[in-house]
Amino acid sequence: RFTTYFPIIDQEINPHVDQWEAEGKFPAHKIFKILGNAGFLGVNKPVKYGGLGLDFSYSVAVAEELGNIRCGGVPMAIGVQSDMATPALARFGSDELKEEFLLPSIMGDKVACLGVSEVGAGSDVSSIRTKAVRKGDEYVINGGKMWTTNGTQADWMCLLANTSDGPPHRNKSLICLPMNLPGVQIARKIDKLGMWSSDTAEVFFDDVRVPCKNVIGQEGMGFTYQMLQFQEERLWGVANILTAMDNIIQETIQYTGQRKVFRQPVLYHQSVHFRLAELQTEVELLRSLLYRATALYIKGNDVTKLASMAKLKGGRLTREVADSCLQYWGGMGFTSDVMVSRFYRDSRLLSIGGGADEVMLGIICKYMDTLPKK
Amino acid sequence: RFTTYFPIIDQEINPHVDQWEAEGKFPAHKIFKILGNAGFLGVNKPVKYGGLGLDFSYSVAVAEELGNIRCGGVPMAIGVQSDMATPALARFGSDELKEEFLLPSIMGDKVACLGVSEVGAGSDVSSIRTKAVRKGDEYVINGGKMWTTNGTQADWMCLLANTSDGPPHRNKSLICLPMNLPGVQIARKIDKLGMWSSDTAEVFFDDVRVPCKNVIGQEGMGFTYQMLQFQEERLWGVANILTAMDNIIQETIQYTGQRKVFRQPVLYHQSVHFRLAELQTEVELLRSLLYRATALYIKGNDVTKLASMAKLKGGRLTREVADSCLQYWGGMGFTSDVMVSRFYRDSRLLSIGGGADEVMLGIICKYMDTLPKK
Amino acid sequence: RFTTYFPIIDQEINPHVDQWEAEGKFPAHKIFKILGNAGFLGVNKPVKYGGLGLDFSYSVAVAEELGNIRCGGVPMAIGVQSDMATPALARFGSDELKEEFLLPSIMGDKVACLGVSEVGAGSDVSSIRTKAVRKGDEYVINGGKMWTTNGTQADWMCLLANTSDGPPHRNKSLICLPMNLPGVQIARKIDKLGMWSSDTAEVFFDDVRVPCKNVIGQEGMGFTYQMLQFQEERLWGVANILTAMDNIIQETIQYTGQRKVFRQPVLYHQSVHFRLAELQTEVELLRSLLYRATALYIKGNDVTKLASMAKLKGGRLTREVADSCLQYWGGMGFTSDVMVSRFYRDSRLLSIGGGADEVMLGIICKYMDTLPKK
Amino acid sequence: RFTTYFPIIDQEINPHVDQWEAEGKFPAHKIFKILGNAGFLGVNKPVKYGGLGLDFSYSVAVAEELGNIRCGGVPMAIGVQSDMATPALARFGSDELKEEFLLPSIMGDKVACLGVSEVGAGSDVSSIRTKAVRKGDEYVINGGKMWTTNGTQADWMCLLANTSDGPPHRNKSLICLPMNLPGVQIARKIDKLGMWSSDTAEVFFDDVRVPCKNVIGQEGMGFTYQMLQFQEERLWGVANILTAMDNIIQETIQYTGQRKVFRQPVLYHQSVHFRLAELQTEVELLRSLLYRATALYIKGNDVTKLASMAKLKGGRLTREVADSCLQYWGGMGFTSDVMVSRFYRDSRLLSIGGGADEVMLGIICKYMDTLPKK
Repeated sequence: RFTTYFPIIDQEINPHVDQWEAEGKFPAHKIFKILGNAGFLGVNKPVKYGGLGLDFSYSVAVAEELGNIRCGGVPMAIGVQSDMATPALARFGSDELKEEFLLPSIMGDKVACLGVSEVGAGSDVSSIRTKAVRKGDEYVINGGKMWTTNGTQADWMCLLANTSDGPPHRNKSLICLPMNLPGVQIARKIDKLGMWSSDTAEVFFDDVRVPCKNVIGQEGMGFTYQMLQFQEERLWGVANILTAMDNIIQETIQYTGQRKVFRQPVLYHQSVHFRLAELQTEVELLRSLLYRATALYIKGNDVTKLASMAKLKGGRLTREVADSCLQYWGGMGFTSDVMVSRFYRDSRLLSIGGGADEVMLGIICKYMDTLPKK
Repeated sequence: RFTTYFPIIDQEINPHVDQWEAEGKFPAHKIFKILGNAGFLGVNKPVKYGGLGLDFSYSVAVAEELGNIRCGGVPMAIGVQSDMATPALARFGSDELKEEFLLPSIMGDKVACLGVSEVGAGSDVSSIRTKAVRKGDEYVINGGKMWTTNGTQADWMCLLANTSDGPPHRNKSLICLPMNLPGVQIARKIDKLGMWSSDTAEVFFDDVRVPCKNVIGQEGMGFTYQMLQFQEERLWGVANILTAMDNIIQETIQYTGQRKVFRQPVLYHQSVHFRLAELQTEVELLRSLLYRATALYIKGNDVTKLASMAKLKGGRLTREVADSCLQYWGGMGFTSDVMVSRFYRDSRLLSIGGGADEVMLGIICKYMDTLPKK
Repeated sequence: RFTTYFPIIDQEINPHVDQWEAEGKFPAHKIFKILGNAGFLGVNKPVKYGGLGLDFSYSVAVAEELGNIRCGGVPMAIGVQSDMATPALARFGSDELKEEFLLPSIMGDKVACLGVSEVGAGSDVSSIRTKAVRKGDEYVINGGKMWTTNGTQADWMCLLANTSDGPPHRNKSLICLPMNLPGVQIARKIDKLGMWSSDTAEVFFDDVRVPCKNVIGQEGMGFTYQMLQFQEERLWGVANILTAMDNIIQETIQYTGQRKVFRQPVLYHQSVHFRLAELQTEVELLRSLLYRATALYIKGNDVTKLASMAKLKGGRLTREVADSCLQYWGGMGFTSDVMVSRFYRDSRLLSIGGGADEVMLGIICKYMDTLPKK
Repeated sequence: RFTTYFPIIDQEINPHVDQWEAEGKFPAHKIFKILGNAGFLGVNKPVKYGGLGLDFSYSVAVAEELGNIRCGGVPMAIGVQSDMATPALARFGSDELKEEFLLPSIMGDKVACLGVSEVGAGSDVSSIRTKAVRKGDEYVINGGKMWTTNGTQADWMCLLANTSDGPPHRNKSLICLPMNLPGVQIARKIDKLGMWSSDTAEVFFDDVRVPCKNVIGQEGMGFTYQMLQFQEERLWGVANILTAMDNIIQETIQYTGQRKVFRQPVLYHQSVHFRLAELQTEVELLRSLLYRATALYIKGNDVTKLASMAKLKGGRLTREVADSCLQYWGGMGFTSDVMVSRFYRDSRLLSIGGGADEVMLGIICKYMDTLPKK
């Protein structure tokens, strides 16, 4: 493990989580600066741009550690900054773009967001409608993005937009878009089931002009880059939730070890400790798959199938863990006073965001060659 | 069906639900008066005390209809008034008590709550600690109640308390307790995962004095009465959630019929319409058991086993329905803008309140004669 | 219940089941004659043709009673005779046909089989290929049938064949086909996973000539008649398996109550008695749905949706019951010495035969109006 | 992978499997000699006694390869020989014992069996009753063993017996018992649900005399040795079933890709290819855990918890895979003509043998420290 004790979490984050949850936002610039100073926002990014230059297994270790934050919203926001909005830029972006957007993101001076999802095109990335039309050496951008994590606070967006009318897998580009440009409107902060401490925006673009040099890598390769970028996002998400599941199971063991019903601790009822053993078994299965996929990934293999399997299982398992554990807290589990009810709300997102379960199944089927032939 | 259109819901309740959810409370006195005027708070209660004098199958029909309210909190509050806090009083209470507490509850002039659960004794009713010590012709009551629905607004409580030191199934009594007596303290309104429109109180009793004649039926029979009262509570809860599940499935069909991914409506994906068919199948199974149990109950049979089975299945199924349907709403399902996310939060209570799933399993095992012999 | 003790099962059937299972066949003519004499092969058939003239709820009661036979093969064979191959004939057949085929089937003098399934057209009835071409006043039949229960012993078959080239739901007819006609070949007795005491044949037709008057009802209505006939088959199958599931659960309770592990009976482990309570709950749910569907059916309602739901649940639940109960028998469960391992093999058929689970889901979707529109 | 093509399976084993299944036995001496010559019976055993001297990861690789045998019985029998009856002997046995029993077992000249399970003490190893009473320099053995794989053909048994009256975890010893000694009676070959090609014996001991020097390692350490020996048995079992699951899923993909219903291949129905993707996901999860546990094991770690988790998941998953795949074969799946129905019968054993699921849960709970304190 990269580290077994992470004082920033205990000192700078966890004491404030309840307040941020109540406020529906956390101070991203402040927290990211602290994390950036400590080197945690660019673990596997190039040293030249402020990163630690380690391999992706270290990012996984950090993601696991961030699972100790006592909510889902803050680690997700950090993950967007470090492993969801920036991998393509780090890998394919020009030096100039990396200097302008990657370095300050790694240092914690700029907050990044990822502009992929749209209304009616959440998991189906190929059908987005936001357009970036080239006029001279600028793109003129119109459209909108939905479910944008960090969206109300971000300094720049890694935007996916259609830059031509070609086939949907070849007509998209990733563009670094400063959020303070004229025509960028934060339509609203979305009120959500969980992840309250993380702001989620709906954003509109009305004739927003951005230099063509802000395109990441080659124009038209955006869909491909985003699919690559998704691999790290998905592995990161699984690593992060693993720790959160471990913690919820451990807290449930502690609580039920003290709470008595029918003259003995809840934990001592066989149906309870057996169920917790089943859940921990599934967690270890998922952890094993994550480590196997990560080891293959850092050796340069395509782990799309394994990463999609891990994401699918992660989303489903966390729903099971949250639901089963909450039950053993009885009435307390239904209050907002305990972590397990927050986890129940927060963790429901994993099966939806970053490619829904059904999208993962589709990808796995594609690799198994079981999809209908036209 | 008792009725297929219930204008009070559409005109007096549903238009205000969003506001009540945001406020964490609904105006019980106002709404109960409207319902009381219309006769819905005493469907199976004696005509003499304002009821309709019908059998319990009509209460079930009303409970089903109340499932059309667009939240879980308000119907639950109504159910407490009509079928959870009052059945024992109606069946075993003195005329004087019925005059003072039952009649105004049925008329909608007084709000009732049920004081059974305590901290550390949620589902394990026999281990409550609140004491009512007889001093002259009064009880002096000390202790506290937890998870009390309607607790901050109630005029009286159907209180379960220990009236002697005997064996735990013989030492309890149900007592009609006016909530404005000195020593009754509403400690706090509990902040919950769901059921936001329903206030839930923690209540303390500090030397509260209540006349001994306020005891329902025989002293010492409170545990037995409460177990009987639970039968109606559980059947009511199942009836109510059935309609809510029907509605969520129907709304999901409508939404997914319009929402397109990968070039066709979400609904047209076989995994989606098959899953919805499985869920509807389970709903019809539960509905059939409810009707069978109700028919047996109104003929005078002990339906404890079947009612416990229905409650168990109801709690588990509603979690499945909520979780599966929410998934098909994609990102929208994770917002607070849609019914399905409210249902996801609200319906989680059914497996916990009114006797948790594990308590139901214990009861079923008792009737199957499979529990360990001492 | 129609009867609570059925001496024929205890005296004439159960003592021989082990032998019939080993032989892969039971003496259908002998057993059916006994059952016919007692009136059990025509419970809801017209008195005029030897039936008892009762409504279908009595057939359901008999089907439940037959679930006490200690294998799945024999009751299935009886069900084919009484409720699967004969309903259409009883309802739509000419007097002459009923005299020739129905009456002796009810009396137990002739063994019937149902010729619907074909290789490559099991659950998809509309795509069968067997052809009956009209030549003069005879049909000339060519093709073959698969999975034909009672097929090696049957005197006649209720055959579904294409009698024209029209649309697949309008071109089929049900025909009473004597099995001793020239050109009817029993290709083989199929070796099966379970249901060993029931013979299952593959049958070929090579220019088999049968009089046109042997068609049941109208020519071209065969698909429709078979769909109707399926309703009784499916409800019958559910009724039959319910008793078998009850019995397996009860035997498991008895066995595990005696078998000790870790110093206490297996049954006393909470995970065991809780699991059995869950299974019994699901059984009661299914029983309730069966009774509700039957009550609606005998009042003349279309219960296709409910019957399909019951069939779907029946198939799935019996797999769960068999698998979960077998586990608690430990090594004994894996031997052929105990009923539970036979049940495990036999009951696996229910999700496949009589319309597979996926076909049931399709029907339910059709009634929910959730299938893709062309 | 150790090897990707294993000609012995294709040439010497698979062509005969159907016959062995029908006969209820396979020629262990003949097949083991072939395997012994090729080195496959002592992969991780010392070179001195004929082994290959490799680490346990190679045994895992061989176990995976043996999963290509087209039944469960033969690989199980091989596994008993190579990784279940011999690990303790190899690790703790005297040179003399290893010369007499281990070397010929590795060479394929002697067939071994494992004598642990008894009637009434399957998974609960500590409660076995077979006694070995020391008389002079011999043990006199009385009792019996049940579910003994290879039992009717074995030359020697690795016998667990009580050698004193002490506490149940300290009073047992493992003894090398020649099966041709006077008093060893093969009571019967057990007729089983599956694993037909593997003979399973009930064995009785009637004053069987064996030299005391035949004890493996220290007297009284038998329970501990067996618990160690179980780790390799369990990992071996998981490795073996993984390949079998892969194969069943692949064969199901091939079959359903050709079998058409409702005008398209069964495979093209989304519920089918999605379900197969879910199953393959679970298989990859299990494979990842196996590899992780094996890697830790060969480095000298205690992997009892992870191995128990893998065994638990293996048993449960194989039931799911078998049941779900069989369904997609329709009527064919219920015949004995196809691999999937054999797999359905055979693989049911994994949750029972080698420590039932419930025993695994108990071990996991012990390591999670969640068992009731006395």
